[in-house]
Amino acid sequence: MKTVFRTFIPFLFLFISIQICAQNVSLNRVEPPNWWVGMENTELQLLVYGENISQTKPSIHYEGISIKSMSMLENENYLFINLSIAKTTKAGAFDIVFKTKTGKELRYNYELKTKRNRHNPIQTIDGSDVMYLITPDRFANGNPKNDSTEDTLEKVNRSNQDGRHGGDIDGVINHLDYIKELGVTTLWLNPFLENDQPKYSYHGYGISDFYKTDSRFGTNADFINLVDVCHQKEMKVIMDQVFNHCGSGHWWMNDLPSKDWLNQWDTYTRSNFTNIAASDPHASKSDYDLFTKGWFDTNLPDLNLENPFLATYMIQNSIWWIEYAQLDGIRMDTYPYPEKNVMAKWVEEINTEYPNFYIVAETWEAKASSLSYWNNNGVNNDGYKSPVNSVCDYPLYYAMLKAFGNENNIYKIYETLAEDFVYGDAYNNKIFNGNHDVGRLFTLLNDDIDKLKLSMAFTLTSRGIPQLYYGDEILLEGDKPDGQLRKDFPGGWKSDKRNAFTEKGRTPQENGVYNYVSTILNWRKNAIEIHSGKLTHYQPIDNIYVYFRSKNEEKTMVIINNNSKTINKFSLERFKESIQGYSNGTDIITNTYFSSLKSIDLKANSACIIKLSN
Amino acid sequence: MKTVFRTFIPFLFLFISIQICAQNVSLNRVEPPNWWVGMENTELQLLVYGENISQTKPSIHYEGISIKSMSMLENENYLFINLSIAKTTKAGAFDIVFKTKTGKELRYNYELKTKRNRHNPIQTIDGSDVMYLITPDRFANGNPKNDSTEDTLEKVNRSNQDGRHGGDIDGVINHLDYIKELGVTTLWLNPFLENDQPKYSYHGYGISDFYKTDSRFGTNADFINLVDVCHQKEMKVIMDQVFNHCGSGHWWMNDLPSKDWLNQWDTYTRSNFTNIAASDPHASKSDYDLFTKGWFDTNLPDLNLENPFLATYMIQNSIWWIEYAQLDGIRMDTYPYPEKNVMAKWVEEINTEYPNFYIVAETWEAKASSLSYWNNNGVNNDGYKSPVNSVCDYPLYYAMLKAFGNENNIYKIYETLAEDFVYGDAYNNKIFNGNHDVGRLFTLLNDDIDKLKLSMAFTLTSRGIPQLYYGDEILLEGDKPDGQLRKDFPGGWKSDKRNAFTEKGRTPQENGVYNYVSTILNWRKNAIEIHSGKLTHYQPIDNIYVYFRSKNEEKTMVIINNNSKTINKFSLERFKESIQGYSNGTDIITNTYFSSLKSIDLKANSACIIKLSN
Repeated sequence: MKTVFRTFIPFLFLFISIQICAQNVSLNRVEPPNWWVGMENTELQLLVYGENISQTKPSIHYEGISIKSMSMLENENYLFINLSIAKTTKAGAFDIVFKTKTGKELRYNYELKTKRNRHNPIQTIDGSDVMYLITPDRFANGNPKNDSTEDTLEKVNRSNQDGRHGGDIDGVINHLDYIKELGVTTLWLNPFLENDQPKYSYHGYGISDFYKTDSRFGTNADFINLVDVCHQKEMKVIMDQVFNHCGSGHWWMNDLPSKDWLNQWDTYTRSNFTNIAASDPHASKSDYDLFTKGWFDTNLPDLNLENPFLATYMIQNSIWWIEYAQLDGIRMDTYPYPEKNVMAKWVEEINTEYPNFYIVAETWEAKASSLSYWNNNGVNNDGYKSPVNSVCDYPLYYAMLKAFGNENNIYKIYETLAEDFVYGDAYNNKIFNGNHDVGRLFTLLNDDIDKLKLSMAFTLTSRGIPQLYYGDEILLEGDKPDGQLRKDFPGGWKSDKRNAFTEKGRTPQENGVYNYVSTILNWRKNAIEIHSGKLTHYQPIDNIYVYFRSKNEEKTMVIINNNSKTINKFSLERFKESIQGYSNGTDIITNTYFSSLKSIDLKANSACIIKLSN
Repeated sequence: MKTVFRTFIPFLFLFISIQICAQNVSLNRVEPPNWWVGMENTELQLLVYGENISQTKPSIHYEGISIKSMSMLENENYLFINLSIAKTTKAGAFDIVFKTKTGKELRYNYELKTKRNRHNPIQTIDGSDVMYLITPDRFANGNPKNDSTEDTLEKVNRSNQDGRHGGDIDGVINHLDYIKELGVTTLWLNPFLENDQPKYSYHGYGISDFYKTDSRFGTNADFINLVDVCHQKEMKVIMDQVFNHCGSGHWWMNDLPSKDWLNQWDTYTRSNFTNIAASDPHASKSDYDLFTKGWFDTNLPDLNLENPFLATYMIQNSIWWIEYAQLDGIRMDTYPYPEKNVMAKWVEEINTEYPNFYIVAETWEAKASSLSYWNNNGVNNDGYKSPVNSVCDYPLYYAMLKAFGNENNIYKIYETLAEDFVYGDAYNNKIFNGNHDVGRLFTLLNDDIDKLKLSMAFTLTSRGIPQLYYGDEILLEGDKPDGQLRKDFPGGWKSDKRNAFTEKGRTPQENGVYNYVSTILNWRKNAIEIHSGKLTHYQPIDNIYVYFRSKNEEKTMVIINNNSKTINKFSLERFKESIQGYSNGTDIITNTYFSSLKSIDLKANSACIIKLSN
């Protein structure tokens, strides 16, 4: 689809406007609602929405600011103003004056704030971090007053697995000590922006206003507060952003800027969800289009980023949130689905403003080859280069399930990691053993606590940036449908029978797993060999997998016995090239000291994480 | 392992030799046994073998030839002479004179032939070709006199599945018309060089003399004759070469040039056969060494190409055969196993002498990612670049088995081809549905003739250079052990009860398959869209896979109905972007004409290969 638009300079605009008859004019929105001085990019495109707003003449009188051009699309209720913000421009506010042909003036007071120095300009998210994914509607209800709000359609109904349960930002803030004590460093919340959908709005991926926190979660100020408190606690926050689609309740749905603002079809057409079509050199155009332009769901209109105004709108929105909320990272939903060159441009623009900014792309690819298309170290054969610095490692996730689930074959992990040469930097892959889209880890591992522990031990010590899903540390269960994957954290609601945020509120089994995970996580915080140390692994024999992480003098040996039997005196002779220089070690889980590294007794289905020493 | 050797110039050699006592001296071998003028590389290293030969002083008097240096390893019975052959050197013969310190002279008459202009200098093997793999001991016995020979240990015994059956080069020559009529263009024989092993010598991969045809197959002259006859018939010949190992019966095994000529272990140590260890960025050195330096089998000593003299010996041997026999291509056995930088150097040296020379690497990798390490379009993350222009497409082979075998899921083929962006040029991948190392196609497809036909239709029309295995066209059956995969072609021996090389000698079922394959192959010879045309495919729906090959105005549509039921009026609407511009077509298998391309009736488990027209 080709975008139809007109760009004109003020002089021409004046000439045209003379010929237009008197009309009602209103001013409803200017977005981004504010901006910052000190940005590397000196251009800013404002979307202005209001009845017949394109028939007005905007003007700005502020030193350093000039209107370079204006554009309109099919719909006269939208005006796009291309501003130039000189590097010397000072922070401040000014009126944008929209003058109608009858001489009436509409005004919008626009503020330019000063771009903050980030608290640590080189801070990013890396292997020293562990993310904790929270579905905010399902974690804790910190403010029961906002469970249902006047400005949103769907009201709270905790008995509906697909309904709103009342969890919110305050609920997360209230439990940051739990999260910090668990030992993770970074929060990732499913989208918190407004989803004003009539039903099934809790998951957050049907955004109806890209600049507004959903009132049932709180306010924009609440979200900023969450980030601030996290930063005070030396934790980081990742925002979940969505470029592929909006909610059918989005404010622009009844009055689109142009027909091609969305990918429109004659009849409702769902995506084929065939991720591989985006990188397939043999793909038919129809399969490719169906993947990229098909709708994710009936209530999730597919945004057409080939429209350059929409592309700019989304990129600016993303940067607005980074600066507004002082984000530490972004998780981009359905990264391969939108126009891929726009996604690359988005990453590059963020990198221009915030070098090393962490972006992890949701890339639901089953195979390393397909995943590498989005994160290799060069240009793909088709000329496409994806600049994201982290991808979602589904190949390793599936291998983990095969290792500790029904196949019970840890070789799958070994052979998957052996493919790491295809990635730009596999150490930056986000690795995980659960998220809001897949069955609960405990359930997929057949309610086997030992296997769940193995999965945790592996995920938290292999290469990559680990991510856990809320509640897996207390054995939450569930499988599809989605509502079952996102159950309420027990104790997040005052009426709950027990409070699993506390030791007393957890069962002995839950405490066993919680303590196991917490022990590894808190040890991990200072284990630089796990953060960025080289991984060296050995081909598993008899379902036992041994690997080492080493950085400078720090070295940790991990032995995973994936068998349901004890192995006595497991010889370490085969691993001598990795052990040499060390003569003893301590298992960081059990605090067992090994005075010799010749052999070791392995319990059934257990992992030893042995910090080597002399 | 580091190679210990000394390089010295003649003057020094003279000085040293004076101090040596009288010794027996003999001259047994000079290899390569001859060479050519007109080579791009003006250096040649001769391996000279004989008792105490390193204690002699060699000299050559021939215009353009000079001895640059000599080298010896641990064993005094080997002398390496580094020759320089000036570009102006003329073809001819000269004596290499080896003078002992007692004044005795040994002579070797060395011939420099003229490098032939290849019959077509840009001729290579590409998608217009189809290879036919023959296990020469098992195809046809053209010369019963050489079934057992005096100079080899193992005698003929056709009742032993692992023994020698008597097939030979003459047997292949005698049936070239059968092969040509079938419609393939290119022969690949399992190695024909001498395998003087006490048993299990028929497969050819235990070479005991890299310059000599196994006498039970014929002579070097017989092989040249085979190539010549093939070229007369406009067919090509690929030689199967092996750098990773030799046979335990190799002549040098009792008197190695140096200990490190082989990868030696304290006790017999078999390779782990873990191909992925060669590209695994996390591999332990021990796993890597076990893969590359472990022995393939007890009777297949592992050659150590880190020894530069052995590396040069093998590279020169490979080039010698190209020139000597006017080869059209090489299939390199176990390509990832030997030292990978030497393998890259080998390819580069061949490319220097013979640009575009076809080399297909045996790369038994299950995943596209791992396979791409050996054939991507750039440099791997570890700095390694593999320059072979064709790799053995095992990922597609396994996908084909899943498509037409027990999983009955043609999506596996689609998703595997979708990964093609990882390769340097997937159109150059060798694709196959059988070979001497895997179960017979008919057996693996559960003796289902329809499925076997589907496999043939797919293999012969998808991207890549197809390769068939002898006898699959007449439904040979068998699974492991290896002897069962390499059964005698019925009719290749005079005593055989029937001759399946003839229509009369085949069952109706066999003729059905033979004719099916032959029809496609002979049509394919002139179908340029199959040779090099772009592949466009569509995501399979309901186990039906549709793809197109197109080049210039030529276009062919392939529809594979992988269901056991007829599909009437299968709509072609979904494929209109590929069909547009064409209004009718002809199925090249059944010769059915379709006057419309709106819908088509699909028989159960059948492929339509429809040449589009107007």
